[in-house]
Order: sequence, then structure tokens, then C-alpha cells
Amino acid sequence: MARSIHVTVWNEFRHETTNPDVRKVYPRGIHQAIADALMVEGDLEAGTATLDQPQHGLPPEVLEATDVLIWWGHKAHDEVSDDVVDRVRERVLDGMGLIVLHSGHFSKIFISLMGTRCSLKWREAGEREELWNITPSHPIARGIGERIELPRTEMYGERFDIPTPDQIVFLSSFAGGEVFRSGCTFWRGAGKVFYFRPGHETYPIYHDKQIQQVLRNAVRWAKPSV
Amino acid sequence: MARSIHVTVWNEFRHETTNPDVRKVYPRGIHQAIADALMVEGDLEAGTATLDQPQHGLPPEVLEATDVLIWWGHKAHDEVSDDVVDRVRERVLDGMGLIVLHSGHFSKIFISLMGTRCSLKWREAGEREELWNITPSHPIARGIGERIELPRTEMYGERFDIPTPDQIVFLSSFAGGEVFRSGCTFWRGAGKVFYFRPGHETYPIYHDKQIQQVLRNAVRWAKPSV
Amino acid sequence: MARSIHVTVWNEFRHETTNPDVRKVYPRGIHQAIADALMVEGDLEAGTATLDQPQHGLPPEVLEATDVLIWWGHKAHDEVSDDVVDRVRERVLDGMGLIVLHSGHFSKIFISLMGTRCSLKWREAGEREELWNITPSHPIARGIGERIELPRTEMYGERFDIPTPDQIVFLSSFAGGEVFRSGCTFWRGAGKVFYFRPGHETYPIYHDKQIQQVLRNAVRWAKPSV
Amino acid sequence: MARSIHVTVWNEFRHETTNPDVRKVYPRGIHQAIADALMVEGDLEAGTATLDQPQHGLPPEVLEATDVLIWWGHKAHDEVSDDVVDRVRERVLDGMGLIVLHSGHFSKIFISLMGTRCSLKWREAGEREELWNITPSHPIARGIGERIELPRTEMYGERFDIPTPDQIVFLSSFAGGEVFRSGCTFWRGAGKVFYFRPGHETYPIYHDKQIQQVLRNAVRWAKPSV
Repeated sequence: MARSIHVTVWNEFRHETTNPDVRKVYPRGIHQAIADALMVEGDLEAGTATLDQPQHGLPPEVLEATDVLIWWGHKAHDEVSDDVVDRVRERVLDGMGLIVLHSGHFSKIFISLMGTRCSLKWREAGEREELWNITPSHPIARGIGERIELPRTEMYGERFDIPTPDQIVFLSSFAGGEVFRSGCTFWRGAGKVFYFRPGHETYPIYHDKQIQQVLRNAVRWAKPSV
Repeated sequence: MARSIHVTVWNEFRHETTNPDVRKVYPRGIHQAIADALMVEGDLEAGTATLDQPQHGLPPEVLEATDVLIWWGHKAHDEVSDDVVDRVRERVLDGMGLIVLHSGHFSKIFISLMGTRCSLKWREAGEREELWNITPSHPIARGIGERIELPRTEMYGERFDIPTPDQIVFLSSFAGGEVFRSGCTFWRGAGKVFYFRPGHETYPIYHDKQIQQVLRNAVRWAKPSV
Repeated sequence: MARSIHVTVWNEFRHETTNPDVRKVYPRGIHQAIADALMVEGDLEAGTATLDQPQHGLPPEVLEATDVLIWWGHKAHDEVSDDVVDRVRERVLDGMGLIVLHSGHFSKIFISLMGTRCSLKWREAGEREELWNITPSHPIARGIGERIELPRTEMYGERFDIPTPDQIVFLSSFAGGEVFRSGCTFWRGAGKVFYFRPGHETYPIYHDKQIQQVLRNAVRWAKPSV
Repeated sequence: MARSIHVTVWNEFRHETTNPDVRKVYPRGIHQAIADALMVEGDLEAGTATLDQPQHGLPPEVLEATDVLIWWGHKAHDEVSDDVVDRVRERVLDGMGLIVLHSGHFSKIFISLMGTRCSLKWREAGEREELWNITPSHPIARGIGERIELPRTEMYGERFDIPTPDQIVFLSSFAGGEVFRSGCTFWRGAGKVFYFRPGHETYPIYHDKQIQQVLRNAVRWAKPSV
């Protein structure tokens, strides 16, 4: 099968290089773990790009060849150059899919596409999260049952300051009582955006089989439709 | 101040007449408790109607004079006559507001306006519910803070089989880990519909000050706009 | 290529049998014209069913084997038995796709899934319609440019009394000045519903290449996602 | 009656000072014409602000005292300082209502809140526009009948590159055949945004009684709800 859907997985890649605990979970970086999970399906091709590469690994020719961009960032959002953000934004509005993960809610690219603050409540307590599948017929939920249970996660709680999503696929609860719109779609320009909450640098969320399934589903959903 | 917004609170009124535990919580019926809570604001007029009255207390002239109808039913949905349901539905589509409470999710009127099964998961364990206010600028959330905490409730869990709500005002979590879209608006015809989850016959939910505030807000939001 | 998506095209099939003008446009019925247009793509299998067949051609085993049901009806909505409508509705809520065409807006099945009156304005003047593609990245708009122009159509005008669609794909204008939400998606239960306005018994709308393309796209979008 | 809702009408105010044709239609500027139309209702207080005032007439204390900001701009969007745009945006996200008119679709403030390009088709031919009221029960449509007819307008056509609106109140058709989502609501942060298409510097749109009614309705809808 030809690898016909081209994904670029972008990662800040700072935690992994400075924190041994993170390196233990993601020895080759979060980006590589995600890319590997995508490549399990034979028509998905996944490259990677990171903050400290020239142009953050996202020169025009890379973006041009990308069907879906996945974005993970956390502590260096401000170091992402406005030029690259503008370029990514133009590509999304022209049709490239964008999947924003976890702490990427505060990335420049997500905020610029949402128009709101994208703020939320959070607590790092390694607590249980349950992601309830409230739109089981959505392509992003394909193969996912009633819920995904993650035994230890960082809590993200409402109010999540986003525009009304086009669709909500997953709603989370946390052991501490909070709720969160954890899987949301947003159509922007000709591009489709999916925000997916799970993921953290020290909890092995991206090794979870169901989370990986959601990521693959989201890539298929977000790819340009023409 | 003239009582210019006319509300009719409809109640099945069976639990209260047969179960002493329920009567202890709602001596004059759930309908009267809600009506009393509404009348606290000087421009709200609240009458009541119950299943065992002729035409279930909803003859044409009552509906015609009603700006907002509140509906509580549970174990006798099937005893509501199709004629009355049709009449209520016509009035909603013509502009009357409708607030459906708790187990009213399975009422004929709600199902007929939603077009789906309106099914959900449930568990009666007297567990804690937290209703998170995810649209604080919505008129229905006026005066409500970040969340409402109810110490003992019946659990309702997703997937709640409803059409995509026009807006979600409250999202609940339960001690057992479930989540629920607890406050949802639906525009149908010229009428506005609000589904509000809290309420149960043995937990004193409708005596809660914040729940009462939401009900009053919802009445104002749902009244015909012309 | 295996014909792996199974479509059933349902047609009232009364105009064609009684009106020579209609028969001239659709000699084998609207259902057959649509089925032929679908079969152009090798993985689409299209059967047909009509009102005057036993059980309207929709016994349980046919529905069970149907991924997407297309519905055309006009002057005999009332002759469709409530039992068959209930059966179709259950299948939709269980995941079968449903595409409702033109005057099908007043079919029992569409009204029961929408919960509103589904009324609209209309005028039969053979006037020009332009369908503007307002969501070009939607799978249903694949291959469709900025707009579809139909030189002679029956006018349908707002207000169309439907719930807020999940997405609007096409908006129409008519020579007389009216507008209409002509391509709307609705997620109901586990099923996806698409309402598509074009179509009439005497104008050769279903022979239009672009209209046929939209129908094929809609079938792919509406098919069960699992 | 106390003037309890405070509106600021912002206008670029360049056409009126340089073009006699515009001055003839709006001798004291578009902002003053709109402010006058608002003040007809006794509880609406309307001040004005223009581009060439210090800080564009929008220093923090003015914004702080503003419940709803109305924005009209056309040929000098780029001259609006980013600092003022940021300040307005923060106020909107904190709850101030924002009504963006006509060519304001390309203003920095609107684009920053939408996250998309907000582009559209246009043609200046003085042609007829009909605005159809598709959500007659919406507060913004109060007192408006089936449609508003404007005999001579500039055409704006789809595709309008905006996120899915929370609600669409008006849909326009133009004599040339185009359609447009002319009245759209967007909830952003704690603020409510209404985009309203009609308006032009040489057609006397803001002297139209129904357009003025929509503006007053929109102010009431957009004001902070708490």
C-alpha cells in the first residue's frame, strides 16, 4: 500500500533533552513515538520536525508536502517564531489538517486559529481520567468503545476558553471531579482542526493503544478532502 | 411589578402521592416546590398542572396562556395522552418555551422534539455531582459561579442520545467517573427548549438555591422573544 | 473493486406512473435514475424500493443490509405506514445513513427525526437556482466548485423550519430572490442524515452531473463509520 | 428611564471627510447616524469614537465603560494600532459585546477573534438585497418580519471564510444571484459578537428603519449578561 497520507509530527522537544524522567518515557522524543504509532497503518507516512531545527523544521516545502500537522508544545510556545506560525496558519486555512495535542492549547498557532484565550484549569496529581465517547459515529472515534480510561494523567478542567466546537467527540472526567471537552473539532478556512487533550511528558499517554488509535483516526479525518 | 411571564409547571405527581419518602421532601409535590421557587421573582407567575387532572391540566386555554412550560415526569410517561403531547408540541413550535427536567428526558414531548432516543446511562447511588458552568456568559448561567455542587444525586451518564445541542451550558461529572451534558439548549420551531438534568424525587435538589436560580434564568431565556 | 457500500434508493414512484411528462424525464423512475448515477462508482451498490411494493420495499432484511437509504417522496407521504417509518427510524438511530431529497422534507421519516415541522415556502416557476458551496472542504462538496447552477427549478424558500443543522454545505438563491439551506447535515443517534434540496419530478435535476456527484459524495459521508 | 446600556460606536470616519457623496448621506458621520438610531430607545446610551482621535478614541477608560462596541471600518484597517486591537480583544473576551458591520469583516479585531481570513466576494452594482430572517425567535430578529429588502446595496457573496457561526439570523440573496450569511452570532470568551452585513458609505443603509431595529436588538443581545 502506498503511503499516501503525509503527516508531520512537530514537537517542541525540550523536556526530553533536559529531563531524564521524560527521556525514559520517550527516548527518541514524543514526536517519534507518535510517528511510530501512525506508521502502523500502511498508508500513513509520518515525518517529524522540532523547535530547534532551522525554521523549526517547517520550511515552506515541508508544509507544502504535509497533509496533516500534529503539534505538541509546552514550555517554549514563545520561542516559536511568528513567521512560522503565520506560515502554518496559512496552510491550515488552505486545507492542511492540524491536530493540536495537550499543552498545545496554549500554542500560538492554536490561539491564532481559535481567537480566544484557550485557557483552562489544571492540576498535576497523576489522577485517573476517563474520556467518554459521546459521538461514537464520528470517524475520529472509530474502533473506540464507550470510553478510554487513563490511570494517571495531568488534570485539565473547564472552563476551557474556546469557541463552540463544531463537534465534541470526547468528554473527560477526572478523579478530582473536573470535566473537560477533550476531543473537539473546529473547521477553519479549508482546514480541519482537532484538539485532543491527552498527553503529557512524563505519563506514557502516547504509548496507550487507544490513544494511538484516536490519533490515526484523527489524521484520516483531518486530511484535505479534495 | 406585574407578573408578566406566565409559567406552568407540569408534574407527573405520582411519586409524591404514593411514596412517603418523596412526600417528606416535596410535601405539596415537585411542581409546587418549583412554582414557589419561581415566584420569588416578582414578574414570574407560576401555575401548575398534573397528570391526573383532566387533559393532564393542559387544556388549550392553559397552554395558550403559558409562556414557558416546565416538565417533570418519570414513571408514567406512557400515560400522557398523545393528544396532549401533540398540543404541547404545536405550542412549542409556535414559540412557547419548554424546560425539561431530569427523568423528563424520556418524556414523549422531549423525544418527539429531539427525534432521537434520548437514552442515557444511570445509577442510583446518592453520589456527588458537580455541574461545571462552561458558558458563563449565557443568560441561563447568570449568577452561577464556576460550578454547582450537589452532594447526593442519581447519576446520569453519557452517551446521552440527543442531537447536537445549540449550546451546552453545564457539564456534569459524577463521583463514579461519568460525565453528562446537563444543561443543553435546543431551538425548535419558534420555541426554545432547555434540558436540565438535576432533580430527583427523593434528593432535595429543587430546594437548592443555585438550582432554583438556574430555573428562573431558564424561564427568562425560554420565554417567547417577540 | 467490490461493491462494498450498499445503498437503497426509495421512491414514492407515483408521478412517473401517472404523468407522461414525468415519465419522459424518468422513464424507469427517479429511483432508477439515481441508482444508475451511484453505480458509476465501482464500490457503490444501489438497489431500489418503492411505495407500492409489499412493506414499501423495505422489509427488515433489506434495511438491515442497507448502509445508506435515499428517500424521495412527494404526494403520498401519508400512505407510508407508521410501522415502516418506525423501522427506518430505528435503523438510522442505529447507524444507517439517510439522504432525504427535495419534497422529502415533508416525509414522515424526516419530520420524525427533526422534531420540527420542516415547512418552507415554495413556488413552481421553473426559475434559476444557484447552489453556493459554503463548506468546500466538506466531503459532500468534493469535486464541486464554487457553485452549481440549475437553469430551471422549483423554488424552495426560507424559513425552512428545521433544527440548526450540524453543518450547512450548500446555500441556494433563486431568481425570485429567495434563499434556502439546500444541503444540511444532521447527526441523529448513530446515523448521519443529509437533506439535499434539488430534485423535482419534471425538471431533469437528477440527470445533472454535479447533482449526481453530490449524491455519491453524500453516500460516502453518510455510510456507517464503524 | 435610565440610560443603562452603554454603547460606543466606532467609525473609521475617513470616507465622510474626503468624499462629498458620502458626506451627503452621513453629514455627521456613520457613527453619529448609528448613535442617533440607538438613542431612540431610552435605556441606550451611545457615544462615538473615531480612528483619528488619540488612541482611536478607545482609551482603557472608554472601553471599560462600554457594554457594547460597534465597529465600522473600510479603507484604513491597517492604520488601527495593534495595541488598541489587543485592548479591544481583551475586553470582548472579558464580556463586552461587539457588533461588526459590513466592511468591518476585514478589520483586525474581527479577524483576530475569528481566526480565519474573513474573505468574501463582492461587487459594487447598487443591486437589490433581500435579508431573510431564518431565526425569527432570535432576540436580534425581534420586530423584524419575514425579510428586509434593501433596494440598492453593495453585493457580498459566499464563500465567507468564517468559522461556523453559533447562530445564523439572516441570510441574504442579491439580484446577481449570490447568497451571504448576513447576520451571524459568535460567542468568544465571555463576549458575544454579532456580524451584520448591511451598510455602505454611499447607500443610506443605516437610515433604514428595519436596519436600525436590528442594531438596537443586537445591542441588547450582545450586552454582558451578568
